[in-house]
This record gives sequence, C-alpha cells and structure tokens, in this order.
Amino acid sequence: MNTNHYYTAEVHGDYQIFELGDFTVAEGGTIPNCLLAYKTLGKLNAAKDNAILVPTWFSGSHQIMQQAYIGEGRALDPEKYFIVIINQLGNGLSSAPHNTPSPRNQANFPQLRISDDVRAQHTLLTEQFGIDSLALIVGGSMGAQQTYEWTVRYPDMVKRAAPIAGTAQITPHNFLFTQGLQNSIMSDPAWLSGWYEQSTDVHIGLRRIAELCNVMGWSPAFFTQERWRALGFTSLEDFITRFMIGYFGPMDPNNLLAMIKKWQLGDICFQRSDNLKDELAKIKARVFVLAIEGDLMFPPADCEHEQKMIPDSEFHIIRTTDGHFALFGTDPNYLEQVDNHLETLLGTPA
Amino acid sequence: MNTNHYYTAEVHGDYQIFELGDFTVAEGGTIPNCLLAYKTLGKLNAAKDNAILVPTWFSGSHQIMQQAYIGEGRALDPEKYFIVIINQLGNGLSSAPHNTPSPRNQANFPQLRISDDVRAQHTLLTEQFGIDSLALIVGGSMGAQQTYEWTVRYPDMVKRAAPIAGTAQITPHNFLFTQGLQNSIMSDPAWLSGWYEQSTDVHIGLRRIAELCNVMGWSPAFFTQERWRALGFTSLEDFITRFMIGYFGPMDPNNLLAMIKKWQLGDICFQRSDNLKDELAKIKARVFVLAIEGDLMFPPADCEHEQKMIPDSEFHIIRTTDGHFALFGTDPNYLEQVDNHLETLLGTPA
Repeated sequence: MNTNHYYTAEVHGDYQIFELGDFTVAEGGTIPNCLLAYKTLGKLNAAKDNAILVPTWFSGSHQIMQQAYIGEGRALDPEKYFIVIINQLGNGLSSAPHNTPSPRNQANFPQLRISDDVRAQHTLLTEQFGIDSLALIVGGSMGAQQTYEWTVRYPDMVKRAAPIAGTAQITPHNFLFTQGLQNSIMSDPAWLSGWYEQSTDVHIGLRRIAELCNVMGWSPAFFTQERWRALGFTSLEDFITRFMIGYFGPMDPNNLLAMIKKWQLGDICFQRSDNLKDELAKIKARVFVLAIEGDLMFPPADCEHEQKMIPDSEFHIIRTTDGHFALFGTDPNYLEQVDNHLETLLGTPA
Repeated sequence: MNTNHYYTAEVHGDYQIFELGDFTVAEGGTIPNCLLAYKTLGKLNAAKDNAILVPTWFSGSHQIMQQAYIGEGRALDPEKYFIVIINQLGNGLSSAPHNTPSPRNQANFPQLRISDDVRAQHTLLTEQFGIDSLALIVGGSMGAQQTYEWTVRYPDMVKRAAPIAGTAQITPHNFLFTQGLQNSIMSDPAWLSGWYEQSTDVHIGLRRIAELCNVMGWSPAFFTQERWRALGFTSLEDFITRFMIGYFGPMDPNNLLAMIKKWQLGDICFQRSDNLKDELAKIKARVFVLAIEGDLMFPPADCEHEQKMIPDSEFHIIRTTDGHFALFGTDPNYLEQVDNHLETLLGTPA
C-alpha cells in the first residue's frame, strides 16, 4: 500500500469515512473493506426530505465541490439542505488503487463502473442516514455520469437531477479522448504496467495527462483572452506549470486510470438494455440538463441530444468563455447561472 | 541519411524536384542542397497570369491536394489554370530531417519557419517559371499559414488568397495543441532525442500523434454519426488502426516534428512587428477566409477574428459534420462549398 500525502485531509480538508465492507463491483472483483470518503454540510430535517447528493468528477474531491458550489445564500445552501458530497471510488480518498492493501492494490484494483459508485453511495445514504428521498442530485462531468445512473437505478428516490457537462452514455469522441488520457499514462515506460514504486516515477505520463486536459478542458477563448491572469498566474507557462501540472503531478497514476476507465465505460444502458432512448424515457426525476458553452469534452449538442429523450426535462447552456473547466468555478458568471438554474429546479414540485 | 519507402513517388505519385542550393533559414542554419518537391497541372499561359499556388498541410503532400481539390470542371481546373502544388519543407518529399545528409540530418535539421517555405516557393515560381503574379493561393491548415505569409511577404504578387481552416498567427490554444503533438513524439524514450535508427522505433510516439489528431481533427459528430463507415471502414477500431495509425505510422518522427515546430511558430508578425492588426491591414490580395464548422484545431471564431482585420475580405463557414479533417475531402458537400467559394473568388477582379 503506497502512501501519498496528496490524498489526505491536510490537502483536501476534513471528511468522514463510511465502511462498505467487502464490495463486489459490477465487472467482477471485490474491493476489500471498501471505503467511501464523504463530507456533509447542513442538517437532515425530521422528514428526511432535504438531502442533496453531490458526486465528484474525475480527479476531483469533495473539496472543490464544497468550495465552488456550496454556501449560505447559494442554491446549495447548508442552512436549508443536508448536503452530502461523496468522493467517487478510485479518487484516492475513497478506496482506490493506491490505498487498497495488496493483493488488490495498484494494477490489481478491480475495474470500476459508474454503477458501482451509485450502489455504494446508495448504501451510505440509506444505512448511515436513513435517507430514502433525494431533493436533488447535482454533479459535473463524471459527477453527471453518476447523476444519470442514479436517476435510472433509483428512480423513485431521486426527485430532481442536474447533470452538468456530462452524458448518460459515453459518446465515441469522448471515448477516444479518454483513450488518449489512458495512453498518456500507460505508454510511459515508468508506469511499469501499474507497478511503479512512487507515483512521481510516472511524471512524464502525468504531464501528458495535464497537457491533454489543458487543451480539451479549457476553451480556445480561455487562452486567447488570457483568462489565466484572473486566476492569478503571470504567464501561460506559469499557468500550465503551476496549475495544470501542479494539479495532476501529485496524483497517483493508477487512481487516475481507475477513474478514466470508469469514465470511458460510462453508460446507463449497462446491464439494462442497448436502447438509450428507452432508458432515458424511464427517468422519473425532474431533470435540468446543464451544458457549458464551448465545452470540448462534453459538447452541448451531445448533452442536448440526450435531454430530448428525457421526459419533463429542460436543457440550459451556461454561457462562459472558460469551457469544460468552468466547472472549477473559475468564472463567477458561470456559477451564478448554475445557481439560478439549481434554484429554479429546487423550487419546482417533484 | 535514412531511407524510408513512405517518402517516394511510388506512395505519393510522381513529382518534380527544384534545387534551391544551400538554403539559409530564418532562424539560422542552412539546409545543404535544399530540395522542393512539386507537382504542376495545366499550362502556364503566355501572359503568365493563370498560375495558382497550392501549398501543403502538416503531414500532407501534393498527392492529397491534387486528389481532393483539383480536376476538370472544378474551381481548380487544370484546363484553365497552371496549378503548382509545392510540398512544404520538412514533409519528406521536399528537404526534411530524414532525407538530408549528415551532419544536417535528423535532430540537426534546422528549425523551420513558415516564411522559409514561402521564400523557397517564391524562388521556385519566379526562377523556374518566371511567374510574377499568382491568380490565387489556396491552402488548408498549415497551407493556410503559408497562404497568409505569402499575402504579406509578396503583396503585389498575390491577387487572391483563400486560407482554409488556418490562421495568420497561432492562437495560444493551437500552440498548446501543437505542444501536445510534439511531446507525443519527444516523450517516447525511443525517440532518442531524434537519433533513432528506424522511424518505426518511435511507433508509440507516432501512435500518440495519431490518437491526438484523431480527437482534435475530427468532430464529435463525425464519430457519433459513424462517418468513418462512408470512408470504407467497418468499425471505429478499424478506422483508427487502418486510417489514423496507418496514416501516421510510416512517417518519420523528425519530419513530423520539423513541421509541428514550424506550425507552432506560425505568425505573420515574425520579423515584421508585434501588431497583427497592422500586418493584416497591409494585405492587398482579395481574401476569402474559409473556416470549417466544428473545427477543433482552428475554430471558426479564431479565423473570423483575423478576417475582420483584412481589407476587402470575406468570411465563409463551410458546413460539414467532419471537422478539421474535412480538408481530406471526406465530405463531398464540403468540397462543393469550397469549390463554389473558390469559383466566386477566382471570378472576382483583383
């Protein structure tokens, strides 16, 4: 079991652990003593109907969701709601290749599916808190994948859902992008088929991930307008080195791979049918599909394509120059628009 | 000097060679006995005013330009025009790292600039054919970069210009993309700082180039609509393996790097001023800026931004689902639109 200071409360802020016990995943294989790292804000009311679930995206943790999306006076207001942010499996705070004991560690960590996260989260919410109704699920990117899976797996439990910049079913283009992310690491000879000593041995692969996410995550306009200046960087090189490489550099390559492979297989049809239209038509939640203008990873057209198949849903494009990574909350106008839509959605009877 | 069967007339169709002699490039360094590979179609008229220049894009040769853009009854009609397609420096038919003798071979090949191509092409056209007026220059992607450089370097010689899916000045996003292309090769340990034995030693780097171009070159819709079926492939994997990897796999990594670095530095302001607006304002040619819908490499907004600074110019978006690589001619509707615009442009007094 590797230790890596990056995956600590010191870096990500405090959180709690829910023990799932031995957890068998959909693709086969069992995570021994599987752990979910989560953070709650606000109080569950007596009726237990004010709970909001916030899953995390690729490489993210509860910290960014809390910082960017939750606060007093915001749509996700801990004064009104009981908000549970659950770190996805593989992210390194929850069970992941780097923190699972041998022989299930590193390359031997099981192949994950989005549905594994959703089943695990369901267990946490029901067993730990006795929640059987969610006022809202809202997540971005891989968090949107989990949001969609929730709506079809537990249709009676999810009252409202807001998938942001993500799809219910991976598109071929997105599949190919995630293939590039995978190969960024796997083609680094230092990766050693997953059996490196230190995560930083694979620094070239991690840099390639940073580079690829840089090009696909931000929009061309983000760079043309030198939006990185607003984030406190003095040059493009400074931004790439300190922000992008600084972000991915300390992470564990196998953890990233576990999430990337899960992302790549993201599909609500898995173990259901081969008909996306049928599956989306079964959604009972009130859904706001939110897409980000100029998003190269999850283009609005792909999000809207799915929204049209969801009963009683709405499609909204969030205007911003930042592209997919506006998710980070880099653009206050983005956050304001998201808040407004979530406010409206939460005010809708469901 | 490496030999590589890929860079032969057997693969690319016949062509001619113009000998530039020792050619000193803008960044310093001299290519000994520098060669330009070119292909002519049609006949130069007595007035020598029916010449059209067609430069090539990254990784392309005269062959694709001839096949996709030139033909009887087309806008570029050899019955009416004397069409000269000139292979860019570094592409492997013209002088390039792989075909230049030691000690200027491989990693020692000089750093190229777009202006080097344009100066070399100018020498060919004037000395070989006595051409001092070009009815049109039309090129895509890096061919558009050369087209722009022509309009500012030889403003009295270029009557009309049609840069397709390219910019006069590299944008930061495009810069970062080309950085990713470079690192795809340079981070392959088998690259050996450019001193590999066989080009295929660097096959992992070449595969990464193919993957990255696949994601950025085609549009999401190209894959969603399985447009590769129309190109004769039976599955996505079949398309990627036989088309994308099949395309880049036989190429020389240093040749690709020579072109990528040139692309990355593409800027008509180089050795002129630091004011793009001033430089574009000096253009005398009648210019049609053609951008491709959904182009992730050279987004239409970036092309239009420059067009607005060019006097007496027009901006047109070519509608297609294929993205940047529609340039290959994969979509007959794309070709028809390009032809119509070129026809109009050629019919405009200049």
